[in-house]
Amino acid sequence: MTNSTVNLEGPVCPIPLRHDEKIVMGHGSGGRMSHELIGRLFQTPFANPALAAGDDAGVVAVATDRLAVSTDSHVVWPLVFPGGDIGRLAVCGTVNDLAMMGATPRYLTAGFILEEGLDVALLAEVVLSMQAAAAEAGVQIVAGDTKVVQRGKADGLYINTAGVGELPPGRAIGGARAQAGDVVILSGPIGDHGIAVLGARGELGFEADVVSDVAPLNGLVAALLAAGGEAVHVLRDPTRGGVATTLNEIARQSGVAVVLDERAIPVRPPVVAACEMLGFDPLYVANEGKLLAFVAAEAAPAVLAAMRATRYGEEAVVVGRVQAAPAGRVLLRTAIGSTRVVDMLAGEMLPRIC
Amino acid sequence: MTNSTVNLEGPVCPIPLRHDEKIVMGHGSGGRMSHELIGRLFQTPFANPALAAGDDAGVVAVATDRLAVSTDSHVVWPLVFPGGDIGRLAVCGTVNDLAMMGATPRYLTAGFILEEGLDVALLAEVVLSMQAAAAEAGVQIVAGDTKVVQRGKADGLYINTAGVGELPPGRAIGGARAQAGDVVILSGPIGDHGIAVLGARGELGFEADVVSDVAPLNGLVAALLAAGGEAVHVLRDPTRGGVATTLNEIARQSGVAVVLDERAIPVRPPVVAACEMLGFDPLYVANEGKLLAFVAAEAAPAVLAAMRATRYGEEAVVVGRVQAAPAGRVLLRTAIGSTRVVDMLAGEMLPRIC
Repeated sequence: MTNSTVNLEGPVCPIPLRHDEKIVMGHGSGGRMSHELIGRLFQTPFANPALAAGDDAGVVAVATDRLAVSTDSHVVWPLVFPGGDIGRLAVCGTVNDLAMMGATPRYLTAGFILEEGLDVALLAEVVLSMQAAAAEAGVQIVAGDTKVVQRGKADGLYINTAGVGELPPGRAIGGARAQAGDVVILSGPIGDHGIAVLGARGELGFEADVVSDVAPLNGLVAALLAAGGEAVHVLRDPTRGGVATTLNEIARQSGVAVVLDERAIPVRPPVVAACEMLGFDPLYVANEGKLLAFVAAEAAPAVLAAMRATRYGEEAVVVGRVQAAPAGRVLLRTAIGSTRVVDMLAGEMLPRIC
Repeated sequence: MTNSTVNLEGPVCPIPLRHDEKIVMGHGSGGRMSHELIGRLFQTPFANPALAAGDDAGVVAVATDRLAVSTDSHVVWPLVFPGGDIGRLAVCGTVNDLAMMGATPRYLTAGFILEEGLDVALLAEVVLSMQAAAAEAGVQIVAGDTKVVQRGKADGLYINTAGVGELPPGRAIGGARAQAGDVVILSGPIGDHGIAVLGARGELGFEADVVSDVAPLNGLVAALLAAGGEAVHVLRDPTRGGVATTLNEIARQSGVAVVLDERAIPVRPPVVAACEMLGFDPLYVANEGKLLAFVAAEAAPAVLAAMRATRYGEEAVVVGRVQAAPAGRVLLRTAIGSTRVVDMLAGEMLPRIC
């Protein structure tokens, strides 16, 4: 777990656990066992009035008449990895999807699919990790659901989160708004999440000193929007498919070309080493705490400075520019001065990375 | 499929399919194969501006500053059963949770967890069934997500839906608002869904002529609220755990007693027969198209009449009353004149019913 204060057996016990308790089918019945499990595991960590009401839906207040709405199911394996776990990932994934629209994330829902036999202690740790991530992001988990499937019909635990964010009047950020002349800013080094998860699977064959970057980016987004305002055209987090796939999506949506400078793209040495070993290109490796910002050139210095002043944007750099042609393409100026086309991820590289 | 107009091979083909196509891990990569699958299967059936934008979150407008927010993961097995399928269930489940707060359901999200090897044709049928259910309920699916897990790590297909509904000013419906003197109305016969799914599994040992009641109840709710207004105190759909568990939840939330009249509770003869064979009590069998309404006595006749005028409320009946004591209890006046306590479902009766 990322939260070192989690203490399941000490004198202050946030979740009362029984020794060696496992999930059984009855926990998914909707009856007494379901209520007991939910009451014991979820209600205290996720405490808020909407959830406490115990009704079919949470009732919440919003301050704007335009919302961003998003969802992600999380099937990462293993459930815990250096720097995070499926719970932190599930909260941050949806928080970040909302933030990338320029919305203020407010409310999440959480749907759990549990495999019969899952350790209840592990589930409790994941729930506490979700609580910590939600607190960090300033969001509330206002509705939830728990289902149980038989042994062999899931892989321990899958978590879906959906979220609602408030969009301020006039806020217009989206993948179709990139313009020729925009500067492309990357918030920090790439590939950490994918390589950290691969390392946790023991698939690297060596110890990689890499920690997932999984983090809520709404604070970073608030800072860059405060600095850049309407000069911020596109925000997107390069998760599955990596920076290369994300930039291809934006180039197609906007009908522009993105030209990347290979030398400018930060990759930590152990990620470079792991990618060289495995034949991966870091441009396609998943990130869970990075964003790409397309910003009008005149505002770029102020936006970059604002990003660098935040916890998750300290290593932000300019990595490219937008030009009119070839529309829908991403080009890479390599370290040796040549230019090549960077396409979307074609097949599968790292399954179940998020 | 419940929608008899679904035609995957005729001259008008809503979803272009290849012969005998299966889900592979690459469909979950987030790269080109994911985009291609989403473009081919989801974009046309779920077409709306928020989804078509192709951004990290859908942008939607709301007309109220109070929302109901809900989520459900669906793991029903088998995926298709008499009267419905996992897609219709996933849409109706969340629509109904929102409607039970007196909210107007507006926007859904859909998260798919696909097992490697799933028939793409089956997935396409489920998507079209979701489209039909969403159209019937008048909601839009504005954000989605697709993940793929290895063969043996899911059971074909799991679907999470989350939803947002608009709450009109002053609307205050919830499980804690039942009052002594309230009349309890049930919208129709119970147990159809559970027995239909059990029949589809071949676990009855005989042919039961039972069809799932899975349906969106927001139209029924709108009609009963128009008739009853603030006299409607509680609405809840008795899904997992059945009528008995749902009434126990409400009795506890409100600190009241619910007294049911056994003779008044409608159960279709084939459901009675199946329950007698299996030793089930229909009061604990899941429904997916029924609701319980707690209504002030003076408004009950008008509410009942309004319910009976709608498609999914034609067989609505008064089944009980609320009294002050014993608080938190549900009592059943049996056909022979005795009274017994009806508790929540204790263990598991029918796993993976929704």
